[in-house]
Amino acid sequence: MRPGNSARSAQAARLAEIGELGLLDRIEARVGPAADGAVLVGIGDDTAVLRPRPGALTLLTTDALVEDVHFRRATSSAGDVGWKALAINASDIAAMGGIPRHAVISLMLPGETEAAWVDGLYEGLLEMAADAGIGIVGGNLAQAPVIVVDVALLGDVEPDRLVRRSGARPGDLLAVTGTLGRGAAGLLALAHGLDGVGGPGDAPALRARPTEQHALVVRAITAQRRPRPRLAAGRLLAATGAVHAMIDLSDGLALDLWRMCEASGTGVRLAAARVPVDAATRAVAEAVGRDPLEIALSGGEDYELLFAVHPDQAARVLDRLAAEADLAATVIGQIAEASSGRVILMDGGARPLEPGGWTHFRGGEG
Amino acid sequence: MRPGNSARSAQAARLAEIGELGLLDRIEARVGPAADGAVLVGIGDDTAVLRPRPGALTLLTTDALVEDVHFRRATSSAGDVGWKALAINASDIAAMGGIPRHAVISLMLPGETEAAWVDGLYEGLLEMAADAGIGIVGGNLAQAPVIVVDVALLGDVEPDRLVRRSGARPGDLLAVTGTLGRGAAGLLALAHGLDGVGGPGDAPALRARPTEQHALVVRAITAQRRPRPRLAAGRLLAATGAVHAMIDLSDGLALDLWRMCEASGTGVRLAAARVPVDAATRAVAEAVGRDPLEIALSGGEDYELLFAVHPDQAARVLDRLAAEADLAATVIGQIAEASSGRVILMDGGARPLEPGGWTHFRGGEG
Repeated sequence: MRPGNSARSAQAARLAEIGELGLLDRIEARVGPAADGAVLVGIGDDTAVLRPRPGALTLLTTDALVEDVHFRRATSSAGDVGWKALAINASDIAAMGGIPRHAVISLMLPGETEAAWVDGLYEGLLEMAADAGIGIVGGNLAQAPVIVVDVALLGDVEPDRLVRRSGARPGDLLAVTGTLGRGAAGLLALAHGLDGVGGPGDAPALRARPTEQHALVVRAITAQRRPRPRLAAGRLLAATGAVHAMIDLSDGLALDLWRMCEASGTGVRLAAARVPVDAATRAVAEAVGRDPLEIALSGGEDYELLFAVHPDQAARVLDRLAAEADLAATVIGQIAEASSGRVILMDGGARPLEPGGWTHFRGGEG
Repeated sequence: MRPGNSARSAQAARLAEIGELGLLDRIEARVGPAADGAVLVGIGDDTAVLRPRPGALTLLTTDALVEDVHFRRATSSAGDVGWKALAINASDIAAMGGIPRHAVISLMLPGETEAAWVDGLYEGLLEMAADAGIGIVGGNLAQAPVIVVDVALLGDVEPDRLVRRSGARPGDLLAVTGTLGRGAAGLLALAHGLDGVGGPGDAPALRARPTEQHALVVRAITAQRRPRPRLAAGRLLAATGAVHAMIDLSDGLALDLWRMCEASGTGVRLAAARVPVDAATRAVAEAVGRDPLEIALSGGEDYELLFAVHPDQAARVLDRLAAEADLAATVIGQIAEASSGRVILMDGGARPLEPGGWTHFRGGEG
């Protein structure tokens, strides 16, 4: 007997009414049986059972989105949250040169959550999964005071394509895919109400402006809500054999570059003027009175790939990326000996590269 | 610069003071480098990189502990929480006949958490990991309003040893390892203050009693805090070739048996009088005025293995389990045709087996 179901339509049902078993049925129906021949057992047993790809190494990563820390229900749809939870994990697989394969979804939810919100979450998860070729093969449900969507993602990579963050060598050119600061600019735009759907600020600066500016704000907010992991680029860069180290930009260029240098035991020269600041970052920065370069350096949530490439091969690698993945990459500096330090070259001077960017518990470090 | 460290000793530091990077350093130092030849890259890159065991299938599962839902800081130490978070995942691998291999730990923590609590958590995680032969190869840190310890565990199994929950056949005998109800009795004992460390009740019934009763309460509370996954038993049962279906008892015998029958498309006859109710369950049930059989049926958190075994092989399988794993198992019923229903045979009658047990959002279903 499941009391409560009759009192509300299935759409408006809350988890406290349909219970864990009811929710599990909905999720199983939505995800459906595994279409992937590598999945022997998907959702519905104690564990998922998978056939590993012969000869490949296994990649395993986990990353979570927490309500009111990483997202707000007022400014991200359930589908946005699902998409992003899987996308940020896929980005980690991309940074190793790998292919994402199978995910388990650990969901923590308050009892008052509407079942329809969970349906929306799975829509977004399944959209990203289809986009990236990922099979959702299991998960876990638990009650919690806020929504937590925690993903563990398995991938694989051929041993000769594996790229670590620790392989950078002095002399390597440092390059980054795409443009930076969009995700963080999207967060600022939402916080300042630039999208016109509300927020603590009421800055109408952009709302009054013509369509080009508005389109840039929308571009930033979309990047914040639905980041696109650079999977094809990661595979291609790994296949060149010329990329010595790679990391995805989740916490901001400054912090993630610092991590690459720490892991590689190197210094670096980063040319601030070369950092490809996105036009949307500039538009939002101007509207809210912030420095666009700082957003690009420390804002986080870019999910672009930062890589160190053999200096003689860099031109070839960037050409190939443009031709085969339709993606521009920009040389922004050079890896140096550890003894020469880690510096950002600015107009008329230099400043030390600090591990500043988005981190938890203090919000930012450096 | 990391302000705040100087103001407090490292032991008393809170996460809001040491920050994510400081916490990550502590965790990396505690876990140490991987001693396992299968780990190419452990903590410290975008993903872990693992060598799969040739010919084996991959098992993947996830399960979380949420503060004030699954544990309370007042009644479980940090080490208990770490132990249990990994143990409940290992139990899922055991139920497939597999060997747990590598885990990633997704931690969500309030900023006011003491760093020493996280140290204790990792002590417990590492104790269980050492016990079960698991390598901790990565994870994620994020801020949240309550503590969440979410584990994703990889394991493997030879294709001919894989046991699913869906393989039960009419005529199979149904058996369970160990004794039931201890974990749930431990929770009741804590809630009623039977351990003498406080709780909402003040039932002094057992405190005044002599040592035997007290020892049973301690036994129940220990089972609740530090469950032991039946890894050796799971391997052995899978190796017999006579076990057709297996599931671990995390949510209670009634619900997990119902799940096995659902997956297998069968009915069942469960003999209530044969259910091996633990002596600790009886002692706690008596002290708090509950029915011990109901606790054993629906309390959950036993982490014993429930299995369906070929009727001609059952005696041999149980003998082997006793001889080689030093573990008793008890035949408690028989799998039946779906058309004959799912029933619990009681003194002087029968009642339907309902999917009653611990579930989230409503606390119990059925």
